[in-house]
Amino acid sequence: MSRSIEVILGPPWPVEAVRDAHVAVVDVLRATSTIATALQSGATGVIPVADAADAMAMAQRIGRDRVLLCGERDSELIEGFDLDNSPASFTPDAVAGRTLIMATTNGTRALSAVAAAASVRTAALLNRSAAAAALTSEDGDLLVVCAGESGGFALEDAIGAGALVDAVLASLPDVELRDGARAAALLYRAVANRLADAIASADHAQHLARKGYAADIARCAAVDTTNVVPTLRDGILSAS
Amino acid sequence: MSRSIEVILGPPWPVEAVRDAHVAVVDVLRATSTIATALQSGATGVIPVADAADAMAMAQRIGRDRVLLCGERDSELIEGFDLDNSPASFTPDAVAGRTLIMATTNGTRALSAVAAAASVRTAALLNRSAAAAALTSEDGDLLVVCAGESGGFALEDAIGAGALVDAVLASLPDVELRDGARAAALLYRAVANRLADAIASADHAQHLARKGYAADIARCAAVDTTNVVPTLRDGILSAS
Repeated sequence: MSRSIEVILGPPWPVEAVRDAHVAVVDVLRATSTIATALQSGATGVIPVADAADAMAMAQRIGRDRVLLCGERDSELIEGFDLDNSPASFTPDAVAGRTLIMATTNGTRALSAVAAAASVRTAALLNRSAAAAALTSEDGDLLVVCAGESGGFALEDAIGAGALVDAVLASLPDVELRDGARAAALLYRAVANRLADAIASADHAQHLARKGYAADIARCAAVDTTNVVPTLRDGILSAS
Repeated sequence: MSRSIEVILGPPWPVEAVRDAHVAVVDVLRATSTIATALQSGATGVIPVADAADAMAMAQRIGRDRVLLCGERDSELIEGFDLDNSPASFTPDAVAGRTLIMATTNGTRALSAVAAAASVRTAALLNRSAAAAALTSEDGDLLVVCAGESGGFALEDAIGAGALVDAVLASLPDVELRDGARAAALLYRAVANRLADAIASADHAQHLARKGYAADIARCAAVDTTNVVPTLRDGILSAS
């Protein structure tokens, strides 16, 4: 059977395209970069939820002192939460051995939207090669889902998705590309030799820089700094 | 006031983004290439409608023998229509002096969706420079709307949109780019020296080639073969 790879470039994510596909959700700035960092730092698992209210409800159910509440609203720490959405916050001291509940504006919503997939992982530039290897180890069609921004397209996620497609193509040269995957791979290759600048040029990167998170942008633009591939099982992302 | 340019890469098109913007709708394969060709061949005007039923109703209202019914369903001539959606069909002999009603799967639907815009034109590769000049002559924000395919992204439209952004930037170097415009321009520049091959690689181009329309793809991938800029006024596209 010939296998295909497609990239959904932003919301709304067509649910029917997700069914039976092996999915990687990409939110370079910052949710999927932060989730990989958290697991690399020894967090036991990350439970993605759609918003702060869902996070609070989940924390009450599990026990508020047994979890860390993480995430952002308009890029900032949510009142009553333990950690924001900056990868710099997710140190071993802060998260090792802990279960995290995470609510972000785009990334964790995208994760909620792909629940019908055959498998769900998260990917970012910093775990690009490991995520591509995990995807290609699956039998079946591959789908990269960009979280996007404010209900639409985000340049950094399309570039991150393209980096993933590029790595998948290196080990599966005969995979059938669909238009979104072609476009993402072309985009990534066009900026691969100036990746940090390209990520920093994106609308959301400029917004984060104005809020004082410029260091996060450079950190999230680095490629292959971890081999952790967050993988969703029973609603919890853990290291594969 | 600083001006911005954005590209909506495919449906669903966010209606709120359209308001107050000067819009160019792009459907390279084939609606906006065909509409420019029809006006270049002397058609008086093209009335875009969302589907075949709307086209029939409009033809009855105007008088069936006073109009030509044009368009496609699954890339083919619609039963009872006069012309399909191939630019090759829109010769001076066929359309000079005639009013056309056109229904296509993606392009004319996109035109229906942007009715709230400050101005609406259509653009394709074959009228790229003229369309860019018309856009930059407007005061205010610019928005390029890709028709896309089957409710999603189409590579050829993103490349066409990028060609338009690239030409706009040449005369308005200080225009503020948004993420969709950045991505489209990067895409176009990545393939500008092999444009025909890049357009032919797209999913919909492959579909058209299988249906026998390979010549249309080459024709629609040619840049600046006409100066006609179809412009919507009172529901009718005519040469500006």
